[in-house]
Amino acid sequence: MNIVVLNSMWVLIASVLVFLMHAGFAMVEVGFTQSKNAVNIIMKNFVTVSIGVLSFFFVGYGVMYGADAGGLIGTDMFALINAPIEISGITFDVFFFFQAIFAATCATIVSGAVAERTKFTAYIVFVFVATMIIYPLIGHWIWGGGFLSTQLGFMDFAGGTAVHAVGGFCAFVGAAVVGPRTGKYKKGKPKAIPGHNIPLGALGVLILWFGWFGFNPGSTLDITSPATAHAAITTLLSGSAATFSALFFSNFRYGKPDAALTLNGALAGLVGITAGANVISFYGAIIIGLISGVIMIFSVEFFDKVVKVDDPVGAISVHGVCGSFGTIAVGLFSTQAGALGLFYGGGFKLLGIQTLGVLIVGSTAIILAFITFTTLKKTMGLRVEEHEELHGLDTMEHGISAYIEI
Amino acid sequence: MNIVVLNSMWVLIASVLVFLMHAGFAMVEVGFTQSKNAVNIIMKNFVTVSIGVLSFFFVGYGVMYGADAGGLIGTDMFALINAPIEISGITFDVFFFFQAIFAATCATIVSGAVAERTKFTAYIVFVFVATMIIYPLIGHWIWGGGFLSTQLGFMDFAGGTAVHAVGGFCAFVGAAVVGPRTGKYKKGKPKAIPGHNIPLGALGVLILWFGWFGFNPGSTLDITSPATAHAAITTLLSGSAATFSALFFSNFRYGKPDAALTLNGALAGLVGITAGANVISFYGAIIIGLISGVIMIFSVEFFDKVVKVDDPVGAISVHGVCGSFGTIAVGLFSTQAGALGLFYGGGFKLLGIQTLGVLIVGSTAIILAFITFTTLKKTMGLRVEEHEELHGLDTMEHGISAYIEI
Amino acid sequence: MNIVVLNSMWVLIASVLVFLMHAGFAMVEVGFTQSKNAVNIIMKNFVTVSIGVLSFFFVGYGVMYGADAGGLIGTDMFALINAPIEISGITFDVFFFFQAIFAATCATIVSGAVAERTKFTAYIVFVFVATMIIYPLIGHWIWGGGFLSTQLGFMDFAGGTAVHAVGGFCAFVGAAVVGPRTGKYKKGKPKAIPGHNIPLGALGVLILWFGWFGFNPGSTLDITSPATAHAAITTLLSGSAATFSALFFSNFRYGKPDAALTLNGALAGLVGITAGANVISFYGAIIIGLISGVIMIFSVEFFDKVVKVDDPVGAISVHGVCGSFGTIAVGLFSTQAGALGLFYGGGFKLLGIQTLGVLIVGSTAIILAFITFTTLKKTMGLRVEEHEELHGLDTMEHGISAYIEI
Repeated sequence: MNIVVLNSMWVLIASVLVFLMHAGFAMVEVGFTQSKNAVNIIMKNFVTVSIGVLSFFFVGYGVMYGADAGGLIGTDMFALINAPIEISGITFDVFFFFQAIFAATCATIVSGAVAERTKFTAYIVFVFVATMIIYPLIGHWIWGGGFLSTQLGFMDFAGGTAVHAVGGFCAFVGAAVVGPRTGKYKKGKPKAIPGHNIPLGALGVLILWFGWFGFNPGSTLDITSPATAHAAITTLLSGSAATFSALFFSNFRYGKPDAALTLNGALAGLVGITAGANVISFYGAIIIGLISGVIMIFSVEFFDKVVKVDDPVGAISVHGVCGSFGTIAVGLFSTQAGALGLFYGGGFKLLGIQTLGVLIVGSTAIILAFITFTTLKKTMGLRVEEHEELHGLDTMEHGISAYIEI
Repeated sequence: MNIVVLNSMWVLIASVLVFLMHAGFAMVEVGFTQSKNAVNIIMKNFVTVSIGVLSFFFVGYGVMYGADAGGLIGTDMFALINAPIEISGITFDVFFFFQAIFAATCATIVSGAVAERTKFTAYIVFVFVATMIIYPLIGHWIWGGGFLSTQLGFMDFAGGTAVHAVGGFCAFVGAAVVGPRTGKYKKGKPKAIPGHNIPLGALGVLILWFGWFGFNPGSTLDITSPATAHAAITTLLSGSAATFSALFFSNFRYGKPDAALTLNGALAGLVGITAGANVISFYGAIIIGLISGVIMIFSVEFFDKVVKVDDPVGAISVHGVCGSFGTIAVGLFSTQAGALGLFYGGGFKLLGIQTLGVLIVGSTAIILAFITFTTLKKTMGLRVEEHEELHGLDTMEHGISAYIEI
Repeated sequence: MNIVVLNSMWVLIASVLVFLMHAGFAMVEVGFTQSKNAVNIIMKNFVTVSIGVLSFFFVGYGVMYGADAGGLIGTDMFALINAPIEISGITFDVFFFFQAIFAATCATIVSGAVAERTKFTAYIVFVFVATMIIYPLIGHWIWGGGFLSTQLGFMDFAGGTAVHAVGGFCAFVGAAVVGPRTGKYKKGKPKAIPGHNIPLGALGVLILWFGWFGFNPGSTLDITSPATAHAAITTLLSGSAATFSALFFSNFRYGKPDAALTLNGALAGLVGITAGANVISFYGAIIIGLISGVIMIFSVEFFDKVVKVDDPVGAISVHGVCGSFGTIAVGLFSTQAGALGLFYGGGFKLLGIQTLGVLIVGSTAIILAFITFTTLKKTMGLRVEEHEELHGLDTMEHGISAYIEI
């Protein structure tokens, strides 16, 4: 029995679990937004998978995993030309399959934040840019042999920064540049625009959680490693702890256990553990989860009331803030690098490296997303007309309604 | 190649399939109840996963699988302290992961039966008790080295009794103590309160069925055993047969093929085969399924009209009655213990053991659940105010509606 | 380590993925049809699984894989009597499990095309016939040792013809014989009857895509074969390319990016690659996807406006037309048989064989379906009364509504 076969089988199955996350993202975004834009949300999710996979096949994979140039960018294997037979202990085909499905998730994060007022065509262009350049470039730095991992020693196991923080920072820029939904702010005060289908959103969260068991444990690429099952448990514990803390903290702060925040709490805990799911202890995972659930709530409030960037689904806080926090927390809770098994295992040095890495990635993502979105704004236009927004993007952009009762 | 790696991989994947059952339970309960309580149902499902996992991590696992004291209870490994490296031929981490996800399903069964009138906080306390004490204690007797399996010879492969009957008996007590929904009985006659979204309920049933292929075949913990694939087929056949019999019997009895009963029929067949999925022949699985679909219908009528316990989703009948029936039926249809391969394989001795085991477990679950629910009723209160029930728990307990059309 | 164990594990997991496709089909059909018939759609999907599995167990498997008689039909192993221990390098139990779940998908395809006006009982009889005779008979010719594969050299890897084209051709006959929905044609002009829940339909498509990663890669029955991961990638690429082409072509042709056509585009690409997922190059998969997305749109128009067969979900075009196209395209794009790795790899000989095979299968399916549906029409009746259709099948056939808002 070849160990390559066994590990390839594991990663193939993990990839398929990750694929279903696209159904999870779609349902979360649909459920948390207004019914008049549901078709548009669905269309964006399909476009993200479709264009994301094709862009990554032709360009993104090469940028991310091609021959390294100066620690900055990959330079070959475009359209998989001259790809090897095996890589990282699994077959190349399985490795590419896993990576291609990952790539599309980064862009998806943005779609929720810019929902309900962004032009469909502009979003399509963004998906091309995100999956050809933004995600693969930063991914190269972290996973493709670039300077962040090889020279700095930055640790990001399954994409707390490479996928989630990058997606969250791009989401922030997109939402800021496109501007808030009409009616979101009256005299500077935010107005809640509730989602139209909480059960569908909840289904989405549970599907995402299910897929996360491919996303995190699958990222070892090695079923013989104890880190694989360890990552499954830390993912389960952190998600559970964050659901718990978001539930109780929202009840404490707002007087009622808030459904949207509790569901986002689960996601916050899953994002929070992603960067260190393999090296953080079980207790550390619970602590990271508890904290993620609470800082997500503060962050949602902060962006809503102080920064006044309108993010319909909370993507900035869930993916950007908790992804960054979780990556930095690897410096606090890693058991691999240290002795105590809980606190300061990596020492302040690792903490510094992780913080620096997040800052570098965050700045880069913000700059690249800003260039993309402002260029789109000045050329083809980023935002639908106000009357289109009020009537809903479904009838205006796609000519149908999501729901018809007959 | 280490066989432990292969079996651990199998059980890890099976666990992930079981995790999606929480999405299935959520959708079934939402679909089969009223729209005004959908957010509350969702919140209870998230709480069940979250608190269930954390309680089981800190306490429940130790009670269930810790060092046995007198055949009654486990006494160490709380918070997984001093856990071994391997157990039952797989890595400890994978074993815990599988067990933790199982644990939460038992409490979930109860949430459907007490839906639409129970206080959210009271339900939260019940989840703590169920996953720290009730389920792990009985689980210890059956799977953790306790007296039912080691001394009595009781057989429960994947939890027909340990999970489903326990959940179903607790559901019975909970529904009885909290009382029927306002308006359910007029002058002692039951009034049908139809669910608000059959397609969502159907999606839930199919997701549950999908997860059951992790639940049953995964319970061998051994991919090299022929019993694994055998359990997959018996699960498929019994679910199919019960769907068939519930469809035709509901048509025969009520004049129309009833949707809710057909969907519950599928679940009845899946529950019915769970205790013996590894040892019951293919023909036996079909017979168990056919019977499960019919006794579920009689049981729903019986609890609705005679016992007058209001169970909105039929959890008592599906999980309690069919779980008990299926466990006893192992004594009738087991091919392992006997010769014929269909009837009386285990002889009357095994039939007696199985019946006795179900009675012991049933009494225990009923007593523990009764203590829990009556204590809750007398202290914090178990039931929402009548006006809260009429307006719906969503607006009253959580401050939002599940659905908004804009 | 026994390689049989490893391959059996892989196919067992793939089968479970395929099982969830039944949830996908159910959601697609519900979402794309009217709300007044949603319960009926759900019931048909449950009946398909239930009766499909039981029929295939008792009869279908033997017809398909029993001892070959004259290259035409299998003749033993009914009810799995005298089944072997192993087959095709995996355990028999896993092989049967995979095949039984496949069998039910073929009938499901038809249920969408005849939706909203067909008698529930008539559909039940059709499922018996389809899973006992039509699918297993043709399946025997292609996969069970019959004349199409062994004598003609016809290639159909995962069922582009055996499952999808057969289902699509039966769908065509069923829809034609039962006639269009009342109100579909006014003075010969088709009227659009939009689906009632696009997000649910979209969820169904993504679940189907997820299951397709079991359907195609699982069909190698061999995890050690490079074709397994290759099939995963071609499935991903073709689905993505077809989503892309359907989106842009629908925008080009109708002025707006059409949601229903984009979602069906994804399915068209998945069906298109199924026959050759193992042997078609990555570039070939993209080309097949791009073409599938476009011909599906032309086909939907053609059947709607020219042939005037009313197919509510587009099953004829998606499964019948794209399944046939993809099977023939194996003769164009197969890399196994030829040199160039893209075009005409198999030479005109293979192209001729594939075309002939599709014609033989298509004629057979059409004849058998025609006999079945016309017999049903003349005996028990195929179509509900007009007033039942107008009120909706849910209240008339099942006595409930799918949705109730309280």
